[in-house]
Amino acid sequence: MDFLPDSLKTLMEELAKLPGVGPRSAQRLAFHLLKSPEANTEKLGEAVRGVRVGVQQCSMCFSLTTSDPCKICADDRRDQSVLCVVESTLDLIALEKTGEFHGRYHVLQGKLSPLDGVGPEDLKLGELFARMMEEGPLTEVILALNPDLEGDTTALYIQKKLGTFSPVHVSRIARGIPSGGHLEYTDEATLIRAMEGRQNML
Amino acid sequence: MDFLPDSLKTLMEELAKLPGVGPRSAQRLAFHLLKSPEANTEKLGEAVRGVRVGVQQCSMCFSLTTSDPCKICADDRRDQSVLCVVESTLDLIALEKTGEFHGRYHVLQGKLSPLDGVGPEDLKLGELFARMMEEGPLTEVILALNPDLEGDTTALYIQKKLGTFSPVHVSRIARGIPSGGHLEYTDEATLIRAMEGRQNML
Repeated sequence: MDFLPDSLKTLMEELAKLPGVGPRSAQRLAFHLLKSPEANTEKLGEAVRGVRVGVQQCSMCFSLTTSDPCKICADDRRDQSVLCVVESTLDLIALEKTGEFHGRYHVLQGKLSPLDGVGPEDLKLGELFARMMEEGPLTEVILALNPDLEGDTTALYIQKKLGTFSPVHVSRIARGIPSGGHLEYTDEATLIRAMEGRQNML
Repeated sequence: MDFLPDSLKTLMEELAKLPGVGPRSAQRLAFHLLKSPEANTEKLGEAVRGVRVGVQQCSMCFSLTTSDPCKICADDRRDQSVLCVVESTLDLIALEKTGEFHGRYHVLQGKLSPLDGVGPEDLKLGELFARMMEEGPLTEVILALNPDLEGDTTALYIQKKLGTFSPVHVSRIARGIPSGGHLEYTDEATLIRAMEGRQNML
């Protein structure tokens, strides 16, 4: 490949470092960028370099924001009595897109994972409990953690700790077959959860 | 999504313009870049902006190069009597990676596609014929064009034109079942070609 221009090789290498971008995609993207108008590569290049500009953590919910508190925490119309705990801002975005949740969030910035050396002090857990002390009574804390081993561990940990905040109701988002899914192709663990979590038809 | 920092939204929009990158991948990549060290985003940003630096077309084969003629055309050890015609530099790279072809290339920079308004004058076809006149006798021209309608049309067009350069042998790369493929899942057109192109076992 030493016959290729250095600028192109450099770009391929840098693109291939991105998650989900293999050497072939990197090559295809690099050629695409080479052929696209200079204004486009300028815009993308600047956007990549400037992605951190003005970005900070919300001091209340720890999501990414340009203003502190973030727009969601600062919004009086949101239900102050319900808190949804998520692992990352990406999960927050996914929930916000549904337009169905009107409470506020708390972004843990990870999940408990002893194998990777991630303990309670590495997450925004202390901040969650402090927040619940300060902000007064909540009616419900919804744990919207991913349904995997670490997510389960984190949910259990939070549930136990929240036992001390007595009147609060702790819930966890449902597991089951996703919309459009097929029983036939669903793994056993999910099917068991889907049966367990069955709902009365109204 | 108005609660997201502008810098992040801008990056997502720019990334989503890339081929094969949907809104979700763009979001994931943007967050990845936000979290990666500043040195990485600097490098990628600069690589994107600088992708064109020093890149030009080889005046002989029309592949992308930083020197003219390109390293392949300038390499005396390459077989001067065999020319491989490809659609794009990406195809050239794919063939070079095999390490099995030791002749030179000619990059057409596209393929005939009347429906998209791409005629012979839009490709490096005149340059191909001029090159064959100037450089003297070739023993073989290999048409390594993609096996689709436009590739076929382009191959036929070149084959006809090359009839005037009498002693040259024009060949086309084989079609058939790819290595590791299954007859069971192979489309009929490919199977027909694979049968037609069968080779004696030695």
